Amino acid sequence: MTLKYEIVKTYKKSRLGKLYTHHGVINTPAFMPVGTCGTVKAMLPESVESTGAEIILGNTYHLMLRPGADLVEKMGGLHQFMNWHKPILTDSGGFQVMSLKGLRKISEEGVRFKSHVDGRSFFLSPEESIHIQYQLDSNITMCLDECTPFPATYDDAKKSMQRSMRWAKRSKDAFINRDGYGIFGIQQGSTFRDLRLESAKLLSDIGFDGYAIGGLAVGEGQEKMFEVLDYAPEVLPVDKPRYLMGVGKPDDIVGAVTRGVDMFDCVMPTRSGRTAQAFTEYGPINIRNSRHKEDPRPVEAACDCPLCRNYSRAYIHHLQKCNEILAVMLLSWHNIRYYERLMQGIRKALGEGTFDEFVKEFYQKQQQGDIEEI
Amino acid sequence: MTLKYEIVKTYKKSRLGKLYTHHGVINTPAFMPVGTCGTVKAMLPESVESTGAEIILGNTYHLMLRPGADLVEKMGGLHQFMNWHKPILTDSGGFQVMSLKGLRKISEEGVRFKSHVDGRSFFLSPEESIHIQYQLDSNITMCLDECTPFPATYDDAKKSMQRSMRWAKRSKDAFINRDGYGIFGIQQGSTFRDLRLESAKLLSDIGFDGYAIGGLAVGEGQEKMFEVLDYAPEVLPVDKPRYLMGVGKPDDIVGAVTRGVDMFDCVMPTRSGRTAQAFTEYGPINIRNSRHKEDPRPVEAACDCPLCRNYSRAYIHHLQKCNEILAVMLLSWHNIRYYERLMQGIRKALGEGTFDEFVKEFYQKQQQGDIEEI
Repeated sequence: MTLKYEIVKTYKKSRLGKLYTHHGVINTPAFMPVGTCGTVKAMLPESVESTGAEIILGNTYHLMLRPGADLVEKMGGLHQFMNWHKPILTDSGGFQVMSLKGLRKISEEGVRFKSHVDGRSFFLSPEESIHIQYQLDSNITMCLDECTPFPATYDDAKKSMQRSMRWAKRSKDAFINRDGYGIFGIQQGSTFRDLRLESAKLLSDIGFDGYAIGGLAVGEGQEKMFEVLDYAPEVLPVDKPRYLMGVGKPDDIVGAVTRGVDMFDCVMPTRSGRTAQAFTEYGPINIRNSRHKEDPRPVEAACDCPLCRNYSRAYIHHLQKCNEILAVMLLSWHNIRYYERLMQGIRKALGEGTFDEFVKEFYQKQQQGDIEEI
Repeated sequence: MTLKYEIVKTYKKSRLGKLYTHHGVINTPAFMPVGTCGTVKAMLPESVESTGAEIILGNTYHLMLRPGADLVEKMGGLHQFMNWHKPILTDSGGFQVMSLKGLRKISEEGVRFKSHVDGRSFFLSPEESIHIQYQLDSNITMCLDECTPFPATYDDAKKSMQRSMRWAKRSKDAFINRDGYGIFGIQQGSTFRDLRLESAKLLSDIGFDGYAIGGLAVGEGQEKMFEVLDYAPEVLPVDKPRYLMGVGKPDDIVGAVTRGVDMFDCVMPTRSGRTAQAFTEYGPINIRNSRHKEDPRPVEAACDCPLCRNYSRAYIHHLQKCNEILAVMLLSWHNIRYYERLMQGIRKALGEGTFDEFVKEFYQKQQQGDIEEI
């Protein structure tokens, strides 16, 4: 419980902030590339850093299975192990474990589950999750919670949320305070306003360094998600960062910042890089499409990443056709740079008080689509 | 026919040289990483350059199929297309086409073949190969030849070699002279001394910028290859570079330099990078081996590549276990750096007149093997 958060400026519901950690400052609103197994897929850490990313996310579930938290600790922690020396946030492992339908059993104490890799049996409790995140040397530890499936009945959502809140308390109690390290609580309550309020109240009574909004981006769709975000962030403590887990597409992020969210993570930029999709200010393109075959233009004229500075669409199309790893490397890099440029643009507009204009232009360009003429 | 070659120093049969091209100087003995489809697999061109590589090899066969030589030409040539601005040598396509057993038909005119990608029919003649290499803007064009299979009878080897020599003449005639661009002939003759001599004589009568030694590293084994190399290089013109195609393992290269060879190419460093093998001065290791699982040491203490500077064997082992692309990226980089460091060591020793000592130490360390103690 010793992460300092400074709100530099507010703009309607949106906030420009700085989160101070032992491994450096994170300017918010911030996007965190995902480094599931101790690597942001197909990227060198220095390349991730060059995109402007100031924090990445590590997955407790994957790392506890391979290579194991004991080994990471022995190797000096996750920063040292993976050669990423800026801040790291780790999730609790809960989301992945809950998804292991048929391979897991939930009780009040925690979750018993079998590894998807080799079938070994593990037990994850709030205390164990916090301990593993400690071993990983995570700057931002997340509480173990239950991500309520969507849709859920009111009663199920309530029971699930209340257990998550009991686990939040146990997580907080298990967390060892260190300077520049902190723990975030996770709001649940599905799409029910009073449950979101109750969850926020219970979490703020416990007291955390930041608050995540959980249980969204699980199939409810953007409209429903924005409905929840119209009230869910602002009931959380105003002086702490708010983190929308697992979100999302560029327009999800812009819409969520408008509604007061400060932090995001998503596998989309790297996953899309592996399926030939590139994000651009004029919407996503798929480089596999034959219209790019002889196109000498860069993927995105306004982008300063290596893909856009040094290569034609024709070349990336060719690499993709030949299943060359370099296509994945360059597209992942471009997509993370796209996300980080988006966040830089958001922060600049918030700082200059021009966020409404920024949002308007963002949507205009996204709707305009990629220009096909050469 | 306008590549300048300067022999800086000789040491017994070995030579230290400089080959001047339109895209820069190549210090010999030189190793050329292979960029089959217009990319050195899993490497950014700036990373390839950082290893010390001064020239790469492109494959005419692969590039003529995908994306096609017309497109590469339209995009400004291969250097521009793939963002590699140092010299490029292209092979003739002959080796790959000849390997398409059942899909190709050889005549005096050339080779009719079907693409392994989509079955389209192509015709490759000496003239067509030279034209494609012109379209690719290759600095060093290779003659179309027939790589005589091993083993071959004397008569078959003779007939095959003599056709290759007729094709060499046609290749040379089709080559358009440009400053800083050149064409190499290819010696054939299998393992028959008088055929190698006859081939060398015929080629030097035509006159080339350099001479390759073809038809080796095709299954004859190192001992047999060295037997041929005991006489084959020195019958080629002394004032031109000699290139041993498709070779090889580190000790093949050291042995071939000793016998008067100046240039090499091989897929081994990148291919090994994709199968978890790392070359080291103490011999190759496979990082998949469980003995590396908790090893905090770098792959090679003496190496200055990103893999060795920034990561433990334990980390690379972990990446490999998780099939992470970063493992391939880092191992390919390391292996190319290993090869380029080897060439730098060879050139340094030749320059200082200490090549015998270099060779002795090289073999001692290779035989000693990787030290397991931590």
